This record gives sequence, C-alpha cells and structure tokens, in this order.
Amino acid sequence: MKLQIFDSTLRDGAQGANISFSVDDKIKVIETLDKLGVDFIEAGNPYSNPAEMQFFQRIVGLRLSHANIVAFGSTRRKGISPDEDSNLKSLLAAGTEYVAIFGKSHIRHVTDVIKATPEENLAMIAESVRFLTEHGKKVIFDAEHFFDGYKTDSAYAMQALERAHSAGAYALCLCDTNGGIFPDEAYDITKKVTDTFPDAIVAIHCHNDGGLAVADSIAAVQAGAKQVQGTFLGFGERCGNANLSTVICNLQLKRGYECIPEDRLKDVYESAATIADTANTAIPENQPYIGMNAFAHKAGMHADGVLKYSSSFEHIDPERIGNKRKFLLSEISGKSAIYDKLKNYFPSLDKNGREMGEIVAELKERALAGYQYEAAEASFVLLVEKILGKYKSSFDLINYKVINELPAIEGKVASAIIKIRVNGVTKIAASDGEGPVHAMDLALRAALAEFYPEIAGVSLTDFKVRVLDSDKATAAKVRVLITSADSADSWTTVGVSEDIIEASWIALTDSIDYALMRRK
Amino acid sequence: MKLQIFDSTLRDGAQGANISFSVDDKIKVIETLDKLGVDFIEAGNPYSNPAEMQFFQRIVGLRLSHANIVAFGSTRRKGISPDEDSNLKSLLAAGTEYVAIFGKSHIRHVTDVIKATPEENLAMIAESVRFLTEHGKKVIFDAEHFFDGYKTDSAYAMQALERAHSAGAYALCLCDTNGGIFPDEAYDITKKVTDTFPDAIVAIHCHNDGGLAVADSIAAVQAGAKQVQGTFLGFGERCGNANLSTVICNLQLKRGYECIPEDRLKDVYESAATIADTANTAIPENQPYIGMNAFAHKAGMHADGVLKYSSSFEHIDPERIGNKRKFLLSEISGKSAIYDKLKNYFPSLDKNGREMGEIVAELKERALAGYQYEAAEASFVLLVEKILGKYKSSFDLINYKVINELPAIEGKVASAIIKIRVNGVTKIAASDGEGPVHAMDLALRAALAEFYPEIAGVSLTDFKVRVLDSDKATAAKVRVLITSADSADSWTTVGVSEDIIEASWIALTDSIDYALMRRK
Repeated sequence: MKLQIFDSTLRDGAQGANISFSVDDKIKVIETLDKLGVDFIEAGNPYSNPAEMQFFQRIVGLRLSHANIVAFGSTRRKGISPDEDSNLKSLLAAGTEYVAIFGKSHIRHVTDVIKATPEENLAMIAESVRFLTEHGKKVIFDAEHFFDGYKTDSAYAMQALERAHSAGAYALCLCDTNGGIFPDEAYDITKKVTDTFPDAIVAIHCHNDGGLAVADSIAAVQAGAKQVQGTFLGFGERCGNANLSTVICNLQLKRGYECIPEDRLKDVYESAATIADTANTAIPENQPYIGMNAFAHKAGMHADGVLKYSSSFEHIDPERIGNKRKFLLSEISGKSAIYDKLKNYFPSLDKNGREMGEIVAELKERALAGYQYEAAEASFVLLVEKILGKYKSSFDLINYKVINELPAIEGKVASAIIKIRVNGVTKIAASDGEGPVHAMDLALRAALAEFYPEIAGVSLTDFKVRVLDSDKATAAKVRVLITSADSADSWTTVGVSEDIIEASWIALTDSIDYALMRRK
Repeated sequence: MKLQIFDSTLRDGAQGANISFSVDDKIKVIETLDKLGVDFIEAGNPYSNPAEMQFFQRIVGLRLSHANIVAFGSTRRKGISPDEDSNLKSLLAAGTEYVAIFGKSHIRHVTDVIKATPEENLAMIAESVRFLTEHGKKVIFDAEHFFDGYKTDSAYAMQALERAHSAGAYALCLCDTNGGIFPDEAYDITKKVTDTFPDAIVAIHCHNDGGLAVADSIAAVQAGAKQVQGTFLGFGERCGNANLSTVICNLQLKRGYECIPEDRLKDVYESAATIADTANTAIPENQPYIGMNAFAHKAGMHADGVLKYSSSFEHIDPERIGNKRKFLLSEISGKSAIYDKLKNYFPSLDKNGREMGEIVAELKERALAGYQYEAAEASFVLLVEKILGKYKSSFDLINYKVINELPAIEGKVASAIIKIRVNGVTKIAASDGEGPVHAMDLALRAALAEFYPEIAGVSLTDFKVRVLDSDKATAAKVRVLITSADSADSWTTVGVSEDIIEASWIALTDSIDYALMRRK
C-alpha cells in the first residue's frame, strides 16, 4: 500500500538546536528529497520574514520530478476575517499548490494560551481552510496538540478536525506536539479518527520526547493513517521529530508499504549523508539503518557469526539501503575481523601467523594510547606496513617550528618552518596560514614539492578534532582526523597527542605517506 | 507495579564502538547505578580474559546498597559435561549470586552456526542451568535470537525456554538480538510466553536496529514481562541496546511502574551525566529526557508559550528527573527567551528598550560568525556587558607568541610568551606546556598572578574543540569551549577563529574576565 511521506526538515527540522540552512542548502535538501521520491516537502513559513517569501518565489521555478512543495502557516488570528490575515495572504502569495496550517485542537490551549472562545477557535479553523481552498490550495490541517487535546476533551478535539474536514481540507494531520504519547495511545486515538473520517487522508506528526516517535508513527499507520510527517534525519526542536529515514526503512522493508519508489531505497543512505553534510551535522554513528556503525561488528564472536551466516547478527542486508557491513578495529575485535579487513591490502598475510599476532597486540597498545582506526583506515594500513617491515617513509623530519602570534602579521596569525631530508637532500621551507595546522600543511607541501611533484594533486578535504580526556582541560590528549583526496580516491588518517599540533602533524605525514605509497 | 531493571552497560554496552572502560571506570558505573536503585548490573564476562576475572574478584568486595552484580557467560559447549566447561566454571568462580547465560533458541542458529542437533542444544541449556543452580546460583537464561527464532519455529523456541525453566532458571530473558522486531510482535510473542509460563519472571532484551528498542521493551512489559534489560545510555553494538534512561522515565512517570525508588527519579539526569563522563562520551543533545536540549526551546512562539503555560510544549516537568528547561540563544530565539535568560544577571534591563534590540542584533551577527552561546553562558554575559558599556577588561594584551616545535625541548613541545598591561604596568611571562593552549594558559596565569592573586583558585576543567566547516580542512573555523571552576561554581566560555590558538585565547580571556567579574 502507498503511504505519503511528508518531510519537514526545512521547517520543523530547522527548529532544532544547531540547525540552520542557507538558501542554497535548502535547495540542495529539496533536490535530494525529490530525487529520493518523497511526496511532500514543507519548505518554510513564508510569513515569518521577507527572505522566506523570496525563497518560495525562487523554488516555484525548480523542476521537481516527484515532490510537492508545501508552505507552512497558521489559522487566521482571532477577531478578523481570513482576507485581513497577512499570514493567510502570504500562504497564497507563496505560490505552492499545497499549504499546511496549524490550529488549536486542545481546549486548554484555546482558553489559556490564545485566549479565544471554543467556538471562535473552531471558526478560525473552518474559515481559514475554506479561504485557502477557495483560492485553489490543497490544505493540510495540522491539529496541534491533538493527542493531548483528545485525552483532555475528545469531543472538542474531534470537532476541530470535523470543521477542517467539512471546510474541504486535503488532509487532517494529528500532531503529538509535546512528543510524549505511547504507541498504544497513538494507535487507539488515530483509530478513532480514521473510523470517524473514513474518507479523509489522516496524517501523523510525532515528536520524539519519549524516544517513541518512530513507534508512534508506525502505530498510527497501523490504525489507518495514510501520511507520515517527520524529518529525514530526525532534526527538530528538543528531542527532534519522527526520523523519516527510520520510518521509511522499517515500513517499506518489513511491512511492504510503498513509502518511496522501490528502486530508490538503495539511495536512502546516500541521501541521508547529503542532507547531513548540507546541514553541517554528523549522522549519529549508531543511527538505525543509516549510521556508520548500524551494521558494524566489534565482538569477535559476532563478527565471526556474520561471516558465516550474515543474518545471524543483521536484521536486514545493509546494501538494500546503500549502507555497508563493517568490522570495527578495536582491542576486542576478533582476529577474524581484523584479518578480513587486511586481506585486501596484504593478500599474503597468514591469519594464524606470528605477524597477525603482532598486529593484534600493537592494535591493543594503540587503543590504550587513544588511537582509533575505525575511521582512519589509511593510518591502519601504514601501521601494518611498519609492523611487516614494508614501510619506507617518504621523508625524515629534521625539525619543525610553528609560531602563533597576536597581533597578527599582515593578517596571518600563524607561520611554520619545516626542515626535512629526502634521500640525503635537506630542504627547509616556510609558510604562513589561517591557523597553525594550515601553515604547517602549506610549509610541508612546499618542502616536498621538488621531490614529489605529484603531491600537488592531493588536497586536504576534512579536519576533525576530538578532545579525549577533556577533564584534563588544556593538557588533555586530542585525536585529529584528516581526510585527504586526489582525483581518484579519498583516505583518512589519525594522530593522537597532548599537543594538537603534533597530533595534526602525525595525521598529516600519514596522509602524505599514504598518498605516495598508493601511487607506487 | 515493581519492574526489575537490568543494566548491561558494562557488558553489552561495552560492545559499542568507541566504548571502553578501565577498572576504575567500571567501579564508578556500578556505584552510580547502585545509588540510582537499579536492580541488576551485568558487569562482564569472567571467562573472556584473566583481567575480567580479577575484576569480579574485586567487586565482590564492594558494598552495594541495592543492586545485584551479574556475571555473564554461555551454556556449555557441545559434547562435554557442564563440569568440564571452563566458561561455566568461571561463572562459579566469579562469586556473584546471579549469573546470566545465553543459549540458542533459534533452530537455524542451532543447525547452521553452532552445528548441534536440536536435542543436544536443548540439553546444553537444561544441563547448564541445572549445574549453576545446583551450585547455588540464580540463573537468568538469555534466549538469543528468541523473537526471530519464534517466527521461524515457535515450538522449538518455546522448548528452549521450557528446558531452562524446568531446570530452575530464575528468569527467562527474551532477546531481540538483531534488533529488528516491531512493538506489535514484541507484544504478541511475549504474551505467548507469559501465558505459557505464568509463574516465571520473563525479561525483555531489545536492540535498537529499527529505532524501536524502547517501544519494544514497553510493549513486552504491557504483555507481562517483569524485567527490562538494556543499557543506561543506550550503548551497545551497532545501533545500541534499549536505552534504560528512556524506558525508566517513560514507564515510571507515565504508567506508574516502579522501576527505581521514587525518590531517586530526580537523580536520573545526573546519573546519566556521570556515566557518560566515565565512558568519555557525550550524551546526544536531543536524547529524550536527559539530553541537554530535551527541554530546550528555540522558536520564539514556543518559548513564549512555555513561559505562559509550561505544559504547552513540554511532556513532563524536566525537574522531576533533574534536567532543566532551557531557552536557546539563537538567531531565531524570541526576545522573550533572551530576556528571560538575562534578567537574573541584569535586573534593570528593559525588555522593550533599545539595549535589548542591540543585544538581539549582536547575537544574530555572532551566530553568523559561528558563535553559539547555548553552552557558554559566561561569554554571553560578558558580551551583554560589553554592549551595555559595563565591561572593563582585567588586562590588555600587548602580544603573545606561541611556539610548537619538534623535536621537543626537554620533553615539552610547546612554549608561550605573553605580554600584558594592567593599570599601566607591563608584565611579560612565559611557560612551556603539553600543548600550545596549555602553555598559553600557564603563561597567562603567571603574568596575571601579581595583579590578581585570586586567579590561583580558578582551574580549567574541560576543553572542547569543534571544527565548524570541516570541509575547509585545516583552514576551517574552529569553536573552542573552555569550562573553568573555582570552589563555588563552574562556567563555560567560547571562542571562534580559523586559528585554534586564537579561538582558545578568546575563550581563555573570557574565562579569566568572568572569574574576576564574579568576585567583585
């Protein structure tokens, strides 16, 4: 059965802490969701400020293959007619076919928050829906606090829906605005609504304050809801909205609903990564389906089991949604998992040989020192080369000196001098930069250029810093991850030290070593 | 009704990526959970290595007020008798009253993974439970892959439970090992078990691969399960285990179950923070109940609503579990929320005055530059003091120079020289350190000491670095947060720059300024 998917990443999602989108970001999110086959994309509130209205005027021109853009607003204010209400007028001006308006359905919010009479609030709903409908809009009515309202005064909550429905609403959306309901309540109350309005499209809009938004959404679908609202990565105020990536994978892979076109399922992982990058956030590593570790195996026994019989510790095949199985390289990884990872790089390695024993022992040692190779496979490969005696460094460091100073000199706060030796030839080079690691990176490249001109094609693309024992404050150890790329590939390296400059230096030299090794 | 809470942070939780505990860490987790009133703490597998066994011998001596320690292992290996099985023998040697052993209940895992006959597997279960019981242990039988097993061959899965039960198991634990079941399945299958074994303690053990572990656990409780297993912060392999902090808050606050003693509920937040610190991880900001933003309000309208009528956007009162309401200071915060935050510091500030307008405008400007004051209230207060013309800096910087070099000099990689002026007196001081910020911190304190001896009582307690636009690699902006404390209080300050040293410097000077301002 077809379910409508309604994404509000750009509207309700943007209420989340640390989430903000530029206009270009928003366009990118819209294009990604459209390509994935999401049905509705709520893009913002055109009334909130002039920039939002301009944005709507711009996206009306976008060519979308599948999705409908939705503009968000509210019912008219009390005491005026719809055509005097500037919020409703901006919904018309936004130029979208679909609009969503929220209204009150909880009697106490009517009397205590907006301080309207119960009847005036119902009139606000009915008149606003009718006004928009008469102007050619398809209206999704968001019944705010519907579940809590139903538990307080079910007759009034149902009346709010009834007024929207009879005024011609396209869909009736049941909102768990505070995010506190349980799946059994979501089921029972939604069932009452779908039984009362058998011809309506009932939508469900859940928040995750009880950690139950996905389960509540599924329960509502089981009770007859035909549209699920949420945000693709669960962004949203407080604990976030229902995570649509999880809802879609659960319902489509396990219960046979068609949420997005079947042939797009394999793009879920990549779409999630694109949206996360655009929002400049990281997907939690343990996020269901799309997390980096969602199919990662650490315990030796589990890793062994998966290699024997993949469904033994996996609920779905990760490739169906574009994710991958992974074996973590940690001190409790079984030898199997480590070997499985290494055999592509070192085909002659003997799983039961002395060298494997040394590798496992060295990994344990490194883990204690704060190294993690899960995300830094290039450094791991170099480490194994060193253990196997195959490593040859591309240069020797004689010394470096990195200087930060304030006031800045000609706008540059940092400078670096690096002296290296390659095949007996000594070279010293210097550079300034935006910060110490930037200066060091540029100085090292300048020093290496005459020996390895191919370094010019390698650039650093990502830089991450994690303070390991942050309670040691500024004397704490830090772990630096550097991602580098050339035209063919990208790779990540790691360095750990109490000194952030030294940690960066370790990761930087690994990056250069790996680049040069790959070219041989 | 009393529900048993069984925490496996130290066993199943330690399977999570990036999670590892030292012996001292484990003791701290045990003490924290015990104080909170958790019933069972699964502390590890004594058979896995000698260090684990020593650890059990050490914790037997701990004085716990409430919790029972559980040692984890498995049923005997096939083809031997229990008293020949070294895993069962180490469970005896661990010295705990309770032990948990996992065994197969999924027919395909019996035939394809451990390659035993169906009857041999049942004998392994029965004999292992009986052996441990006869030696005075209370045995929790973990039926691995129970739900998937039930769906494949329900009779066999039930037989596995029956054998454990009739051999004297204390509890029968139903495991969703792959984490893929839905709440309706969790309910239906658990109900079959509780109906079949009305006198047994049935436990539920869920994984979160479908984002449903909390909902599945609740459904099983609704079907009669009397014990919930999980990990307090949701740690665990892949997508983690059922998050017990969420389960406890949901069931105790909303359904009246007694999971922990009622008077400890207010300690949930702090216990979570202690365990997260011990595991050296951060609680996700949007984590239900215990996240820093679980009760944070950003949208102006929501913040206004909560100030009028707190339950309008909150599902519970955050103070019941020791968390706090929060208004985010962001570019879309309403004036109300900002004012509400400031009025304690600046009682004479006029909500509708010109100064509030300037503050809101400056905040927007700063947000664009990468500043976030959500976690750095001290820097926010100083910023407002500057806008109000009340700020007086405690010193003027003439210049600083921070040098990192390799090879290190006498083991120190970093040194700093700082020249400042206080009331017309110039002072220069220097220090070396573990890293550049450490050296800078020590040099600044040395320079300030004669002017402000009270600085000696202030220490830095936490240091965090976030790379903001990490795709700009080493030229990216970084945000540094520094937390400082004296005997009475702690406060956090923020700095942003492309240069990590300058960002740290900004946060450091704010920290000193704030410390000195508070003392006046």
